[in-house]
Amino acid sequence: DFLNALHEIVPAFGASTDDLRRSRLNGMVDCGDRHKHIYQRALLLVEQVKVSKGSPLVTCLLEGPSGSGKTALAATVGIDSDFPYVKIVSAETMIGLHESTKCAHIVKVFEDAYKSPLSIIILDDIERLLEYVPIGPRFSNLISQTLMVLLKRFPPEGKKLMVIGTTSELSFLDSVGICDAFSVTYHVPTLKANDAKKVLQQLNVFADEDIDSAAEALNDMPIKKLYMLIEMAAQGEAGGSAEAIYSGKEKIKIAHFYDCIQDVVRY
Amino acid sequence: DFLNALHEIVPAFGASTDDLRRSRLNGMVDCGDRHKHIYQRALLLVEQVKVSKGSPLVTCLLEGPSGSGKTALAATVGIDSDFPYVKIVSAETMIGLHESTKCAHIVKVFEDAYKSPLSIIILDDIERLLEYVPIGPRFSNLISQTLMVLLKRFPPEGKKLMVIGTTSELSFLDSVGICDAFSVTYHVPTLKANDAKKVLQQLNVFADEDIDSAAEALNDMPIKKLYMLIEMAAQGEAGGSAEAIYSGKEKIKIAHFYDCIQDVVRY
Amino acid sequence: DFLNALHEIVPAFGASTDDLRRSRLNGMVDCGDRHKHIYQRALLLVEQVKVSKGSPLVTCLLEGPSGSGKTALAATVGIDSDFPYVKIVSAETMIGLHESTKCAHIVKVFEDAYKSPLSIIILDDIERLLEYVPIGPRFSNLISQTLMVLLKRFPPEGKKLMVIGTTSELSFLDSVGICDAFSVTYHVPTLKANDAKKVLQQLNVFADEDIDSAAEALNDMPIKKLYMLIEMAAQGEAGGSAEAIYSGKEKIKIAHFYDCIQDVVRY
Amino acid sequence: DFLNALHEIVPAFGASTDDLRRSRLNGMVDCGDRHKHIYQRALLLVEQVKVSKGSPLVTCLLEGPSGSGKTALAATVGIDSDFPYVKIVSAETMIGLHESTKCAHIVKVFEDAYKSPLSIIILDDIERLLEYVPIGPRFSNLISQTLMVLLKRFPPEGKKLMVIGTTSELSFLDSVGICDAFSVTYHVPTLKANDAKKVLQQLNVFADEDIDSAAEALNDMPIKKLYMLIEMAAQGEAGGSAEAIYSGKEKIKIAHFYDCIQDVVRY
Amino acid sequence: DFLNALHEIVPAFGASTDDLRRSRLNGMVDCGDRHKHIYQRALLLVEQVKVSKGSPLVTCLLEGPSGSGKTALAATVGIDSDFPYVKIVSAETMIGLHESTKCAHIVKVFEDAYKSPLSIIILDDIERLLEYVPIGPRFSNLISQTLMVLLKRFPPEGKKLMVIGTTSELSFLDSVGICDAFSVTYHVPTLKANDAKKVLQQLNVFADEDIDSAAEALNDMPIKKLYMLIEMAAQGEAGGSAEAIYSGKEKIKIAHFYDCIQDVVRY
Amino acid sequence: DFLNALHEIVPAFGASTDDLRRSRLNGMVDCGDRHKHIYQRALLLVEQVKVSKGSPLVTCLLEGPSGSGKTALAATVGIDSDFPYVKIVSAETMIGLHESTKCAHIVKVFEDAYKSPLSIIILDDIERLLEYVPIGPRFSNLISQTLMVLLKRFPPEGKKLMVIGTTSELSFLDSVGICDAFSVTYHVPTLKANDAKKVLQQLNVFADEDIDSAAEALNDMPIKKLYMLIEMAAQGEAGGSAEAIYSGKEKIKIAHFYDCIQDVVRY
Ligand SMILES: Nc1ncnc2c1ncn2[C@@H]1O[C@H](COP(=O)(O)OP(=O)(O)OP(=O)(O)O)[C@@H](O)[C@H]1O
Ligand SMILES: Nc1ncnc2c1ncn2[C@@H]1O[C@H](COP(=O)(O)OP(=O)(O)OP(=O)(O)O)[C@@H](O)[C@H]1O
Ligand SMILES: Nc1ncnc2c1ncn2[C@@H]1O[C@H](COP(=O)(O)OP(=O)(O)OP(=O)(O)O)[C@@H](O)[C@H]1O
Ligand SMILES: Nc1ncnc2c1ncn2[C@@H]1O[C@H](COP(=O)(O)OP(=O)(O)OP(=O)(O)O)[C@@H](O)[C@H]1O
Ligand SMILES: Nc1ncnc2c1ncn2[C@@H]1O[C@H](COP(=O)(O)OP(=O)(O)OP(=O)(O)O)[C@@H](O)[C@H]1O
Ligand SMILES: Nc1ncnc2c1ncn2[C@@H]1O[C@H](COP(=O)(O)OP(=O)(O)OP(=O)(O)O)[C@@H](O)[C@H]1O
Ligand SMILES: [Mg+2]
Ligand SMILES: [Mg+2]
Ligand SMILES: [Mg+2]
Ligand SMILES: [Mg+2]
Ligand SMILES: [Mg+2]
Ligand SMILES: [Mg+2]
Repeated sequence: DFLNALHEIVPAFGASTDDLRRSRLNGMVDCGDRHKHIYQRALLLVEQVKVSKGSPLVTCLLEGPSGSGKTALAATVGIDSDFPYVKIVSAETMIGLHESTKCAHIVKVFEDAYKSPLSIIILDDIERLLEYVPIGPRFSNLISQTLMVLLKRFPPEGKKLMVIGTTSELSFLDSVGICDAFSVTYHVPTLKANDAKKVLQQLNVFADEDIDSAAEALNDMPIKKLYMLIEMAAQGEAGGSAEAIYSGKEKIKIAHFYDCIQDVVRY
Repeated sequence: DFLNALHEIVPAFGASTDDLRRSRLNGMVDCGDRHKHIYQRALLLVEQVKVSKGSPLVTCLLEGPSGSGKTALAATVGIDSDFPYVKIVSAETMIGLHESTKCAHIVKVFEDAYKSPLSIIILDDIERLLEYVPIGPRFSNLISQTLMVLLKRFPPEGKKLMVIGTTSELSFLDSVGICDAFSVTYHVPTLKANDAKKVLQQLNVFADEDIDSAAEALNDMPIKKLYMLIEMAAQGEAGGSAEAIYSGKEKIKIAHFYDCIQDVVRY
Repeated sequence: DFLNALHEIVPAFGASTDDLRRSRLNGMVDCGDRHKHIYQRALLLVEQVKVSKGSPLVTCLLEGPSGSGKTALAATVGIDSDFPYVKIVSAETMIGLHESTKCAHIVKVFEDAYKSPLSIIILDDIERLLEYVPIGPRFSNLISQTLMVLLKRFPPEGKKLMVIGTTSELSFLDSVGICDAFSVTYHVPTLKANDAKKVLQQLNVFADEDIDSAAEALNDMPIKKLYMLIEMAAQGEAGGSAEAIYSGKEKIKIAHFYDCIQDVVRY
Repeated sequence: DFLNALHEIVPAFGASTDDLRRSRLNGMVDCGDRHKHIYQRALLLVEQVKVSKGSPLVTCLLEGPSGSGKTALAATVGIDSDFPYVKIVSAETMIGLHESTKCAHIVKVFEDAYKSPLSIIILDDIERLLEYVPIGPRFSNLISQTLMVLLKRFPPEGKKLMVIGTTSELSFLDSVGICDAFSVTYHVPTLKANDAKKVLQQLNVFADEDIDSAAEALNDMPIKKLYMLIEMAAQGEAGGSAEAIYSGKEKIKIAHFYDCIQDVVRY
Repeated sequence: DFLNALHEIVPAFGASTDDLRRSRLNGMVDCGDRHKHIYQRALLLVEQVKVSKGSPLVTCLLEGPSGSGKTALAATVGIDSDFPYVKIVSAETMIGLHESTKCAHIVKVFEDAYKSPLSIIILDDIERLLEYVPIGPRFSNLISQTLMVLLKRFPPEGKKLMVIGTTSELSFLDSVGICDAFSVTYHVPTLKANDAKKVLQQLNVFADEDIDSAAEALNDMPIKKLYMLIEMAAQGEAGGSAEAIYSGKEKIKIAHFYDCIQDVVRY
Repeated sequence: DFLNALHEIVPAFGASTDDLRRSRLNGMVDCGDRHKHIYQRALLLVEQVKVSKGSPLVTCLLEGPSGSGKTALAATVGIDSDFPYVKIVSAETMIGLHESTKCAHIVKVFEDAYKSPLSIIILDDIERLLEYVPIGPRFSNLISQTLMVLLKRFPPEGKKLMVIGTTSELSFLDSVGICDAFSVTYHVPTLKANDAKKVLQQLNVFADEDIDSAAEALNDMPIKKLYMLIEMAAQGEAGGSAEAIYSGKEKIKIAHFYDCIQDVVRY
């Protein structure tokens, strides 16, 4: 069966997967059907690039609220493909560079990919690559023009390339015209109460009688924030209780958990 | 008869047609009357440039939605003319260059053309050449001024030049004033259901009883997106079925085809 | 009689008229009273500059829709004057130059003119000299300031200068304040049906019974577009008929002529 | 009597008055009470600078429509003062310079003035010095800041300075805050019919019976435009009559005069 | 007990706390429950960073009106943590530097922190770091992009980092998107009358019968302004009384105190 | 008594007071209670800086209409303090400099002040230091950021600094956020009729019976404009009477005085 199980991670031969792994600090757990569906579809596109003759270039955008799991998902697809060249392009490695240098860096990644028969490039947090800020709005048109051309330029004959983009600013990308440059777009959502419950069960830090109310309080929370929240609550009101909770000796007090939600959620 | 059949491609003597051919990755099929009409009219303009004394410069704009076939059409006209100098100017070969360098590059292509008795220059995706982005809007005024002058400047005595532009941002070009600089403008449309049906018949990937519903679902789709969609659907729901379908052993499942449309079309 | 006949072209001694002649690719035909009137008035200004003591500088603006014949008119006045220095300043010869270089070039033309007792400078397509684009709007303020000063600066004692500007963006020039810098302004119009008829009679490419309907269809067309249209129609529906028509053996088919109008006119 | 008669021009010792004289190409005629009043007041300010201890710096702005006689007036005050340093600062001598160079030039003129016991600086056409254009609006803030400081900075002890500015863009200067930097402001108006009549009588180019109607037609015309109009009309309808008119042998035909007004006035 | 008493200051081993101490010019007094609560929560986050495995990076924003005590609070948390690397990033040490130099400086502080197992970085007055001004608004997008990336980038494996930001321009930070980059946000308020009373009691500069009215008049005042006001009032109406008041010999006159409030508060 | 009489000027030891004195060209007269009150309060702040331990930095803004006496007041406070370092920062000495040079200059003045135990810095006409112009509005954000940091940065331990700013653009400073950076703000008003009367009595240029009407006409006039107006009126209608008036032999004619007001006041 072509589709691997969701949390089994098969490292690709020849591809440096360190960066990719680092993008999934809290591992990959089952957090609901939508996340699973996107993963499966993305892997079908991977196959299409590999076998089809008319698709030397396939581009796919993962969009959704901040912390919803886009980068972890993209990294997992990259890892689970058996492509020899998998590369993540992120603003983290280009801090403070001039836009033209960033631009050259991005082009270089594509040029390298063109040398490999099968490649995946992850454009992580495209709004950050574009130095986007909503006031104005301002952004690097140099980089946005470059991306729009790269997202449509075919690799040389015989080479195949998949590009996965991630963003939490869909409407900005749309207004720039970058969305249209992607063939396919998937929305990565926050967790619903029952998705959150699944995650909490796997984490096992709540008493059984609290797990439903906790999950309910987590309704509509992005998965990344959920992890931060659990960590905060695990310290306990007066500090010092984290070890006991992670080792299973104690459970998180639901009242303190509610308190922590106040600090994290902005109204 | 001066007009060649639509999908017969006669390479021009002395003109490098590699770039042009690469622009038609999925070949040229019959996809309806409007595309055919535009092709014929464009060839008449080619003849006018060749024979007329008062028209040393003819300029023609192909505009239409993204993926409607503009570049492929322009490339085909370029190939089917028997002009010794046919050149495509595209943002792909100028990624990351400064606007003044791009400008110089474009001027160079025109200067070269002026040396040939008969030339065609394709300005592909003019909005991209202008580094256009709708926010602001921003674009290179240097390049837009250059194009406006080049589109009106006569070649030296005895030389003839045809310029074909393509764009999917007509109203932007209009507001810049570039549209007025073209003598003629043709609208390249998306496919209607019956146009799509013609294409599907030629591709032969659907069961006979599904072809009408498939074509109906493709109503108003640009031809480029149609090809991408067929490729996606051909993988099958669980992957792996592409070869069987292209070899004719299997047909695309219409239900899965509908699914794929969801991923590709944005509402 | 001081006023020369409209289409007789008398080259001036000592002035290079090559550029000027090239601006009238389709020659000068009688195309109605307004064009003739403007020509005569412009020649009166030429005389005023020559004989008057209080007018060492006279400036005149020809404005009107794109293709209405402004440049050809200005060039004709320049040729028909007997002034030793007649120069056309056009964006065509300054493509891609930096605004400060263009500015220097323009100033140089004026400085040269100041050395001749009698000079005419044609500032062709002022909006293009200013790198104007309606979006924004943007334009070179450096060049516009330069023009505003040059249009008011008297030549040195004993020297006389006439400046003729052309533009199809009157309201822009007005909002910049350049219009006020010209002493006189003339509007160069499109052709009315009866003006067009005059031109068609001189071209002799329609059957007698078609000439009125053809002229009617050309109502409100600029003269430059009229010429392009005739060339297109002369190819015939299937190409190849141009020679027969220009040699008078055949006439343009009125139905095909209507078709061509569709391609050229934008609604 | 301190106040000189209006059109007597007494050159100042030691001051180069060539530039100043060139600013009054058509001489100074009596053109109504307002012009005379402004001239007298300006001369009183000249005296104030000279004799008062508390006014080492007096600044005065002449504002009014284009061509109303501001520059000629300012130049006349400069000439009629007996100040050793009288200098006109104009955009004409700074064409194409960078704003910082212009700025340095202006500062230099003030520094020079500070060395003379009594000085007059004419800042001619301040909006042009500021490179003002209404679109945007745009202008040089560097120069405008410089002027605002210079207009308030006292000369060194024992030195006296009068600054006369001219502008036809009062509301712009006002919005920049430059108006407030001037101590006194005078409005220089267009001519009323009876002012125009005075001028026409002195020029003597109309038949007696036409002079009133001509003056009426000139109501609200700036004096500079009046001179241009007379020159145009003096050529006659068919050219060639200028000499006869200026020598008094012929008079301007009133009908042709009305025609010329049409060309000059914009509605 | 993990939580230290509020005003006891325990200097950290190895961390330079001079800058931090200088940020608390008026010491730390008990000024109400909210300030105390924030301090305690911040110390819990300090502990979380130290013990948790899933939280190598915790970010916390202190926002509130100008002078409400944000910087003093952040500095106190830094001092009271036992972290070897505690650094304050402030605009004061980067006056007049180009934004790219500031950017490099900030990055350097983070890179240094990444070398220490446990670090705290205080980004003081983020709007000033961003060179924010409400008109426009304008700000350094280079620095804001840099902060957004740094606030999300994990330190290298095995290293832990806490970032504390302060700002009095929450809505600006929000519109830039920097707020979302912080995991937790606390609002630092002005003082209520009863909070102010606590502070006044500790300062002991009012007569007992005046202390309630004085506290009432200080309702809604930021703590920093309160200190300035007391100093002003302590001079007395005619000057010279400060020493007597601070030594306890005299008390501040309540009427003069009300007067001083008028000067300090803007309506 | 700590407070010196208003118009007695006691030069400070060691401080260069030439610049300061030059700022009070017309001396200091009694012009009403508000001016006196501000002067006294400012001197109290001077004392506070000197004696208080918690106030190493006190900042005070004088704002009011153009010409209301702000600079003269600030200079007088500087002179009347006995501080060893008193410095005025004015746009006059930085004409035409680049904003970064100005910025460096301002920082230098502060750095110098930090070396003196007691210092006063006058930031004169802050809007001019910021190169402010209402159109746009435009101003130097570099300088405004620098001022905002300098106005809050404490001098090194043991040093004391008072900063006095002046401005006639309060609402601009407010919108930039510079007002909030000052601890105290005083409004310096125009003169009321009875304030003006006091000044006129001291000047003694009107007949006794005219002084009340003259004062009435001066209601709401800034003191600087009052001085200019008296000088103008003192020339007399036909010039030449200034000496007689200042020597007391003649008085200003009230009718001519009213005339002069027309020239100076803009409606
Ligand atoms: N099934 C899952 N899918 C995605 N992420 C998961 C899943 N299970 C656990 N995670 C964890 O959730 C976190 C998701 O964070 P991630 O950085 O991918 O979100 P994001 O949407 O990219 O956030 P941002 O908008 O800030 O870029 C990761 O730490 C990851 O390890
Ligand atoms: N008759 C046809 N006309 C045009 N294109 C055709 C035709 N038949 C097949 N095609 C294929 O359809 C595709 C059209 O894509 P093309 O790049 O020309 O579209 P486009 O309008 O230029 O798109 P974009 O807006 O992205 O530039 C090409 O792959 C081409 O091979
Ligand atoms: N009487 C005429 N007046 C003007 N042009 C004429 C006349 N007769 C023939 N023509 C031809 O008409 C054309 C006018 O084009 P021209 O370039 O002068 O127009 P334009 O108004 O300058 O156009 P644009 O707005 O594009 O600059 C020329 O080819 C000229 O030879
Ligand atoms: N009494 C007068 N006052 C002013 N100008 C006069 C007078 N009599 C004659 N003139 C003539 O009128 C003309 C006035 O033109 P001038 O350039 O001074 O106007 P302006 O207001 O400065 O115009 P612009 O707005 O273009 O700068 C000059 O040629 C001058 O010789
Ligand atoms: N409990 C307290 N919390 C905070 N500050 C206190 C406390 N007690 C006394 N202070 C004093 O109050 C002042 C608070 O000023 P601080 O600079 O921290 O305010 P801020 O909010 O950072 O101001 P700004 O908005 O100007 O940056 C300091 O001088 C500090 O010494
Ligand atoms: N009591 C007084 N207070 C202030 N100025 C006085 C006083 N008495 C006389 N003057 C004179 O009034 C004038 C005030 O002008 P000053 O330059 O101080 O005003 P300003 O408000 O700074 O003006 P601007 O807004 O142009 O900077 C000075 O010439 C000063 O000598
Ligand atoms: Mg991400
Ligand atoms: Mg294309
Ligand atoms: Mg033209
Ligand atoms: Mg003038
Ligand atoms: Mg602070
Ligand atoms: Mg001042």
